[in-house]
Amino acid sequence: MRKFTKKSMTFQTGLVRTTLSAACIGLFSLETFASDVDLIVEGDYVVTMQDDDSIIEQGAIAIKDGVIVEVGKADNIRKKYQTSNIIPGHEKVLMPGLINGHSHSAMTLFRGIADDLDLMDWLTQYIFPIENKFVTPEFIKTGAELACYEMIQSGTTTFVDMYFYPEVIADVMVDCGLRAIITAPMIDTPSPGFKGWNDSFSAGEKYVRQWQNKHPRITPGFGPHAPYTVIPEHLKQVGEVAKKLSAPISIHVAETSGETDIIQSQYHKTPVTHVLSQLQDNWIIAAHMVHPLESEYPSMAAANLGAIHNPTSNAKLASGLSPVPEMLNAGIRVGLGTDGAASNNNLDMFEEIRTAALIHKLESGDPKKLPALDALKLATKYGAAAIGFESSIGQLKTGYSADLIQLDLSEARIHPIYDIISHLVYVIDSDQVVTTIVDGKVLMLNKDVKTLDGRKIKEEAQHKAKEIQQYLRKH
Amino acid sequence: MRKFTKKSMTFQTGLVRTTLSAACIGLFSLETFASDVDLIVEGDYVVTMQDDDSIIEQGAIAIKDGVIVEVGKADNIRKKYQTSNIIPGHEKVLMPGLINGHSHSAMTLFRGIADDLDLMDWLTQYIFPIENKFVTPEFIKTGAELACYEMIQSGTTTFVDMYFYPEVIADVMVDCGLRAIITAPMIDTPSPGFKGWNDSFSAGEKYVRQWQNKHPRITPGFGPHAPYTVIPEHLKQVGEVAKKLSAPISIHVAETSGETDIIQSQYHKTPVTHVLSQLQDNWIIAAHMVHPLESEYPSMAAANLGAIHNPTSNAKLASGLSPVPEMLNAGIRVGLGTDGAASNNNLDMFEEIRTAALIHKLESGDPKKLPALDALKLATKYGAAAIGFESSIGQLKTGYSADLIQLDLSEARIHPIYDIISHLVYVIDSDQVVTTIVDGKVLMLNKDVKTLDGRKIKEEAQHKAKEIQQYLRKH
Repeated sequence: MRKFTKKSMTFQTGLVRTTLSAACIGLFSLETFASDVDLIVEGDYVVTMQDDDSIIEQGAIAIKDGVIVEVGKADNIRKKYQTSNIIPGHEKVLMPGLINGHSHSAMTLFRGIADDLDLMDWLTQYIFPIENKFVTPEFIKTGAELACYEMIQSGTTTFVDMYFYPEVIADVMVDCGLRAIITAPMIDTPSPGFKGWNDSFSAGEKYVRQWQNKHPRITPGFGPHAPYTVIPEHLKQVGEVAKKLSAPISIHVAETSGETDIIQSQYHKTPVTHVLSQLQDNWIIAAHMVHPLESEYPSMAAANLGAIHNPTSNAKLASGLSPVPEMLNAGIRVGLGTDGAASNNNLDMFEEIRTAALIHKLESGDPKKLPALDALKLATKYGAAAIGFESSIGQLKTGYSADLIQLDLSEARIHPIYDIISHLVYVIDSDQVVTTIVDGKVLMLNKDVKTLDGRKIKEEAQHKAKEIQQYLRKH
Repeated sequence: MRKFTKKSMTFQTGLVRTTLSAACIGLFSLETFASDVDLIVEGDYVVTMQDDDSIIEQGAIAIKDGVIVEVGKADNIRKKYQTSNIIPGHEKVLMPGLINGHSHSAMTLFRGIADDLDLMDWLTQYIFPIENKFVTPEFIKTGAELACYEMIQSGTTTFVDMYFYPEVIADVMVDCGLRAIITAPMIDTPSPGFKGWNDSFSAGEKYVRQWQNKHPRITPGFGPHAPYTVIPEHLKQVGEVAKKLSAPISIHVAETSGETDIIQSQYHKTPVTHVLSQLQDNWIIAAHMVHPLESEYPSMAAANLGAIHNPTSNAKLASGLSPVPEMLNAGIRVGLGTDGAASNNNLDMFEEIRTAALIHKLESGDPKKLPALDALKLATKYGAAAIGFESSIGQLKTGYSADLIQLDLSEARIHPIYDIISHLVYVIDSDQVVTTIVDGKVLMLNKDVKTLDGRKIKEEAQHKAKEIQQYLRKH
């Protein structure tokens, strides 16, 4: 367990104390001594995502100090715990918040700016020139707020980010309430705000040091862009400092077959083997992972590398299909991500779950590939493991952080319901998310986002887009 | 043009009359003589889907007697036409209603009953036994109402159906307001309500004759299930009577490679060639069409056959990917469909559009395959042609039926908007549909479905599902 050790321990102590007090007094009914909690959240279906895949009908969870105290039948939870804050669960699913393992949050401002193009045309004619012209701290703030608003609305509670001005993104996330691993991008060529490697590396290291242990929801990390944009010596340099600081590394690996050709010709290795040889014993979150070799699976599993599947982005840019079922079988940690909204074009994890469940069946010709429950786990339990948070999030479980969402089932078109897992993958979409809670704090209730002003964000996004459009018309 | 000739002519006469009166009087301002219309619907973006792909910003359409009188700038439309019924378009897209080219509407009651199985296990262990046990006219009524409610909510205005008790489905569609081609299923084996071919064929023929010219929104047709379930003589029999009645034929063709093997071994032909040889000069709506041969494209185009792409169902059941871009290039009419909600598991055409746009890029390795505009056309203009309605629906155009939808753009997470076509495919989903209009009649306004009682339908669906669940537990 890499994070949240302190909270879990506090909670355990609390539990022991409660149990002892009740046992000692003995004479009185337990109800008299119902423990105080901060919040109870209920659901007609509580999809725990625990190891036994248990689903509790008419269930509830009790939350105190941002941590799940107990998951059980609603009747029992209401008897055992007391609070004036109860979010009812009639016609609702309660499940862990979704984990977006790879994104570039502020790219929401480039949502749909250019589509249906070859990757290199898309990058060199649109994304790179616009980034160089427009990416400023103010731009990043608006883009990150827009991303945050979208993630809260669509049920994401934790995400891994790699984008410019990570300290600005971190500030936004502190305010909006999401949990995030925010990594500082590092690249060997000039990029927004930086002249090249030394510049981006030292700024990144400074950011990680500043943000370590600064806020319980923010984990700063390093974001060396990819093996084809960062030379081996620089990758090694990142690996060493990240290890020293126990900080995560987010990196694009084996995204396209073109990348494999480049790395093979430059370093006589495949991208995965090359990256693992430079980043030894590191906490690695490897995005895309479309083209690993089967022979590399054992070393990926042994390295505890997290492979993040980005089905929409990889389909849209025609990069290929990551061998997710095969990697899971090989014991590799696999999560799910949206990539940036410039290549998706949204940050909707329910769409990723559904797309993943469909395309693996299509490509393999096997309708049993990546069944609904596995697809859902990629965004919850498995996703937590892939980013190194398996002991604190991704499940509704005693001692875990209270990161959870409620989805509304009242619409006729969702019915009938034979199997709630199937529905969460193949029927329901993110518009059914009505409640989003992180660390026990309610970020959205009845679809009303509490921590951000949607109207203001929209106006700012439109304003920025207008400037970008004027620039595109001229160039 | 197969349908609605009468209406278009009526409208043309009306237009000529209006123009002449205004010209003759001359002295007065045109505004004084603004023509009466029944309804004006506006949009910040009016996506016409006309041949020039025109998008009118701050546009509107005027509607009279269920027909589009004019499409233009909102300012001009408001000056030229008068009505007290105006649906404003601030922060809204106005576009043609979507066309679902293949569905089994009442199967909504089997939504999610069994997933992630081999096709034959899914059919023989779940679908067939449950159909035989539960499909009754009452069951069909509830299932069709649930389907209709979902389609109205998600922006579908026309659909092609093939399911038992088509007369019950037709009755539901008359009441709920959707436009439909409803085909009577015919199969060589016993099926719900029928002993075998003669029984289902004669009931089907009777239904088609009864419903022809009965209601302007309902087109009855024949639904011989598939070449592997209907013998050649029976296919030919359907073709002859359908030709005599100018009725459409909906049929599953070339859905799986297994089907190709069966037809090849039984009749020494591929499914497409076999079907075209039995159904000559027929109005054919061929669902799935996953495995046609390139050599068959010219005869498919020449036959004006409509091929219906069902991307979600074909992915979920691992049937394969229909060669849509290639068929379009060959001049074949191609539409888009959901299939039934038992294999999808919803009737959401926006999901089909997006899934289609993604998976063709993924499978071909070419990010330019099936660009956003083409994907959108499959569900509108191209889809109309595929089902034989190209002269009356699928575009917002003078003289066409007023079948249209409005989508709300007010949510921050939809912004910024650089390209509305890209957004309709890659960002927006069906939950943004707020208005649904068919033949000028408002079926949904501000997300409130006017023609059906969602609460009652939901309760009935839940009740039916409970019975099915009890049966499944016992068997």
